[in-house]
Amino acid sequence: MSQRVAFLCLGTMGFPMAGHLASAGHEVCVYNRTAERSRTWLDLHAGRSAASPAEAARDAEFVFLCSGNDDDVRAVVEGESGALSGMRAGAVLIDHTTGSAELARALAEQAEQRGIGFLDAPVSGGQAGAERGALTVMVGGAPTHFARAEALMRCYARKIGHMGPAGSGQLTKMVNQICIAGVVQGLAEGLRFADRAGLDAIAVVDVISKGAAQSWQMDNRAATMIEGRFDFGFALDWMRKDLGIALDEARRNGSRLPLTALVDQFYAELQADGDGRLDTSSLIKLL
Amino acid sequence: MSQRVAFLCLGTMGFPMAGHLASAGHEVCVYNRTAERSRTWLDLHAGRSAASPAEAARDAEFVFLCSGNDDDVRAVVEGESGALSGMRAGAVLIDHTTGSAELARALAEQAEQRGIGFLDAPVSGGQAGAERGALTVMVGGAPTHFARAEALMRCYARKIGHMGPAGSGQLTKMVNQICIAGVVQGLAEGLRFADRAGLDAIAVVDVISKGAAQSWQMDNRAATMIEGRFDFGFALDWMRKDLGIALDEARRNGSRLPLTALVDQFYAELQADGDGRLDTSSLIKLL
Repeated sequence: MSQRVAFLCLGTMGFPMAGHLASAGHEVCVYNRTAERSRTWLDLHAGRSAASPAEAARDAEFVFLCSGNDDDVRAVVEGESGALSGMRAGAVLIDHTTGSAELARALAEQAEQRGIGFLDAPVSGGQAGAERGALTVMVGGAPTHFARAEALMRCYARKIGHMGPAGSGQLTKMVNQICIAGVVQGLAEGLRFADRAGLDAIAVVDVISKGAAQSWQMDNRAATMIEGRFDFGFALDWMRKDLGIALDEARRNGSRLPLTALVDQFYAELQADGDGRLDTSSLIKLL
Repeated sequence: MSQRVAFLCLGTMGFPMAGHLASAGHEVCVYNRTAERSRTWLDLHAGRSAASPAEAARDAEFVFLCSGNDDDVRAVVEGESGALSGMRAGAVLIDHTTGSAELARALAEQAEQRGIGFLDAPVSGGQAGAERGALTVMVGGAPTHFARAEALMRCYARKIGHMGPAGSGQLTKMVNQICIAGVVQGLAEGLRFADRAGLDAIAVVDVISKGAAQSWQMDNRAATMIEGRFDFGFALDWMRKDLGIALDEARRNGSRLPLTALVDQFYAELQADGDGRLDTSSLIKLL
């Protein structure tokens, strides 16, 4: 069934995600801070564009958003021209931005007061996953809202998990990033050690990647790490933002994250070196 | 073709490995420090036992060994009753123990002086892998010796890599353990965080294990870590020995291993708590 939807913020992720919704036959109205990006999108897809989030959100059953951080989300969702002021009761706002669980809970409350549903729904899978429509979506919010939005998210997701009440999607994404931090740093240390030990690191990966040392990062990043190529993938500036959110949350919930804190500092070192745009696998540069 | 082989040290790993050689039709002579273990083995398999490593090694084309550490290997290989003194020229000694690259190079040299081949060939895959004959073997040594021994190792290995000259097998195993240290600690931090954040950690693993956070450890250890079960698998006493070897080698080859050193200290903490026999995944106990 074709739905009237809005998609706010056509970044690296939002642009293809909105495209998948349009390709599936939904009536998409897009909004982007710089209008030129909207025009580019409309050159490629059927749909409309709006001059503000509120305008885009008017008449939409579902409003999607994928932005950079908490402040960006607030700028698009709150205030007179924000999405919430334009949405009608009964509609659902789905935020695919990776941000804090606190903001997710606050927005869910604001939305509820207006009779609007809210889902925090950060994704993983990166630009390639967004383009192929193969993202993983981690969703927090009320089951009724989730049930209504799930089919639409299937347009760009391969795996969708409903993790609990508002904020649970963000918390799940934090777990994801914490796990990645450990994997990548361990892999970086292992690969550099292999090189310094005079081994053929590619041959080492081939033999150890069938057992207990295996990881997605080993399967997908070891070769480029060995080559020293990092001009792709997930920028460590973004990873650092995500780890900062996780470390903040850990302060509140009493978790100890010694390795995560250490790796976060290594990323700080790379940022200080001007390497913030490099892929997260560039940790090996420090070794 | 049936070969005359010896297998020294029937520990958790050696016992089933020697069994696979016997099942494949080779004439196996076993040696174990405590003779009772040899008798148990002979109750289950066709073969002979010997009273000393030298005696077991006499007449053998290939002598296998899987022991605990460098000192154990020396005790079985060197000296009057050691394997090398019993072996004839042209035979090959294959050491499956995880130990230092230094010892591997020293033994290769001693062996060569007697016209004997030497391969350092540490394994991964644990007790389960040894029993199922599905180990990974990382081999260092001369190509001619490797070529002769490879078919025999296939009796208990699913994956065999020839990594370079003597010591290269040990160095590869070190890379394996370095990678595992990062993966397990990251996973432990992620799972404990999930729990403290009020999430269903099993559901979190289900959704994040399809993407960039995936690892063998996540697929195979997350459930038991969440349950708090650690009475199986690879004892952290052994992991600590292996990490010590890697950290020593890093001192020599100039590698920096900040995460590995940190995780090694966490294992030290668990040992101090009397938990040295627990599986390596028990890092989560500290969080």
